[in-house]
Amino acid sequence: MNKWYVDVGPDSDVVMSSRVRLARNFEKYPFPHRSLSEHQENVIKETCDAIFSSNPKLKESFTLIRFDEISEIDRMVLVEKHLVSKELAESELKTGALISQDEQLSIMFNEEDHLRIQCLASGMQLEKAFDICNYLDNIISEEIDYAYDNVIGYLTSCPTNVGTAIRVSVMLHLPALTMTGYIRSVLESCGKLGLAVRGLYGENTEAYGNMYQLSNQVTLGKNENDIVMSVKNISYQIIEQERLLRAELFQKNNDKISDRIMRSFGILRYARTLTSDEALQKLSDIRLGINMGLIKELSETDVSEMMLLIQPASLQQYEKKVLDPKERDICRAKYVRDHIERKMGNYREKTD
Amino acid sequence: MNKWYVDVGPDSDVVMSSRVRLARNFEKYPFPHRSLSEHQENVIKETCDAIFSSNPKLKESFTLIRFDEISEIDRMVLVEKHLVSKELAESELKTGALISQDEQLSIMFNEEDHLRIQCLASGMQLEKAFDICNYLDNIISEEIDYAYDNVIGYLTSCPTNVGTAIRVSVMLHLPALTMTGYIRSVLESCGKLGLAVRGLYGENTEAYGNMYQLSNQVTLGKNENDIVMSVKNISYQIIEQERLLRAELFQKNNDKISDRIMRSFGILRYARTLTSDEALQKLSDIRLGINMGLIKELSETDVSEMMLLIQPASLQQYEKKVLDPKERDICRAKYVRDHIERKMGNYREKTD
Repeated sequence: MNKWYVDVGPDSDVVMSSRVRLARNFEKYPFPHRSLSEHQENVIKETCDAIFSSNPKLKESFTLIRFDEISEIDRMVLVEKHLVSKELAESELKTGALISQDEQLSIMFNEEDHLRIQCLASGMQLEKAFDICNYLDNIISEEIDYAYDNVIGYLTSCPTNVGTAIRVSVMLHLPALTMTGYIRSVLESCGKLGLAVRGLYGENTEAYGNMYQLSNQVTLGKNENDIVMSVKNISYQIIEQERLLRAELFQKNNDKISDRIMRSFGILRYARTLTSDEALQKLSDIRLGINMGLIKELSETDVSEMMLLIQPASLQQYEKKVLDPKERDICRAKYVRDHIERKMGNYREKTD
Repeated sequence: MNKWYVDVGPDSDVVMSSRVRLARNFEKYPFPHRSLSEHQENVIKETCDAIFSSNPKLKESFTLIRFDEISEIDRMVLVEKHLVSKELAESELKTGALISQDEQLSIMFNEEDHLRIQCLASGMQLEKAFDICNYLDNIISEEIDYAYDNVIGYLTSCPTNVGTAIRVSVMLHLPALTMTGYIRSVLESCGKLGLAVRGLYGENTEAYGNMYQLSNQVTLGKNENDIVMSVKNISYQIIEQERLLRAELFQKNNDKISDRIMRSFGILRYARTLTSDEALQKLSDIRLGINMGLIKELSETDVSEMMLLIQPASLQQYEKKVLDPKERDICRAKYVRDHIERKMGNYREKTD
């Protein structure tokens, strides 16, 4: 079964991925950080039962991962794939996650809340991601009583999530807005419109590779559909700006921008050592090059795959050994080189 | 007929080329800058007569170029090829040059001295270059009386050339000495041993591409053979140091140095705009990569050819049009890209 991130979604020239996440808590247990180990175990067991009893076939497409049974590297791979949060991977509680085979759906157990139901999708597919979350949420709620207040809505461990307890986000690739510096005013406007903007790995992380995550800040006093539509609409305004700026850059500064993109391609194809930051930055450049028709031998999907696999834990899992940072930089360069070489070979065969 | 610079000479891992130049003046005419236009014409005519009357066959392998009959670009191409000096190309006098088809031999007319007989050769071939200069010098001296003093030797326009009037030089590629910073003490020692060190284009030019020209400073009180041997011997000491350092660099810092070389290769293969300085620097890196067996698809000769053709005038002659600096940078990148692509294609065919 193909992983979700090798699909090409709508508006993939700018939108890397869409994500919807619902926070839910059991009514009968205290929030995870105040709950007993026994409660935490029950949360995992009862949720799985609720899902699989109603639909035993679902069992085949999900894997339950217990965090105390897997290595630190395997836990960090899940973080790098955005399947679980860093907090969950490092938690002292009884934690785990139920993950679908295509890695689109995941339920985190005993993070900040008992359940975090999450759906990822390629490109701009917020409604689809929301529908899938809803589907799973409905199945679970048939068996489990959630902590819910008729006036406020869903109760959550952190007050910022109370109400709809939904977080809707899109990961946008904004190289033209970044290069021209216009990104600053875009980020300011987002704040005023109630959206939070973060780097690739959540709050307080830099926007490596010109990738920005936009998400709703307010969860209370609005319904879920409005929140989804609001993030989607604001995103499209940014997407349009990015597209216009790209066209302008390529029209007015074609030599300069093509030079930058092709140099990045040359470096990725030949470098013998690559830090994670540099690799992301160069991959961002070639993603733009692919979108603008400058690089035909690679696809957006190739870039997404590389962006995922060049990360420290994923790289170590791929190499099947623990690597120090210097070794990782060498393996990263080799992985990128080999990947590009293979794809270029495929392209040559196809066009010959 | 192949140009001299596409041959691979001895010790070509470090020695780019060898050059010997003799300064000669007619006894009967004042030095060029004090001579009449008529004298200058006679110098050209009488020298050609002296050479071709003794050996009419030589006529086929030489071309007489009159500087007032060729374009500025064509004149500058001769400078870039080291066939004539910049001073000659910009002179107001009746100037010209007799150049052999393989571009190994040239006689400049009416530069600082009436005649400058010069021979270039690939790699370390100082004796050969000296022999060839001598051969031509002997032919000329059978017909022409040189300005010569029995005690001092050959008389020249500038006192620094008086005596043997010989300049012996080698162009060395010293990336390892440069990277490690040891080059400074090498240059100091050269000064103490009576050698001048210059960049690629003579005095006061920087050592672009890690290329250094070593030449004798003293022309008086020694015989020609001693001067040739002295430059050769000192060069070999430097060559050995460079080789040891290269081996050490590749042993101790293989990742770092290979990374630098392969990145340079990637940039040359893909960049869309390249300044002359950057191209020389990167070509220097890949020359080292070829020597160390890291790049197999290209040869030293390919690098020499590219180093020559990326220069401003040569590039414009190749493109058959006048280009402004920005256009040159774009053409330079295209030329380098195409050249590498062609050579890599040849290599693939050979190894398939």
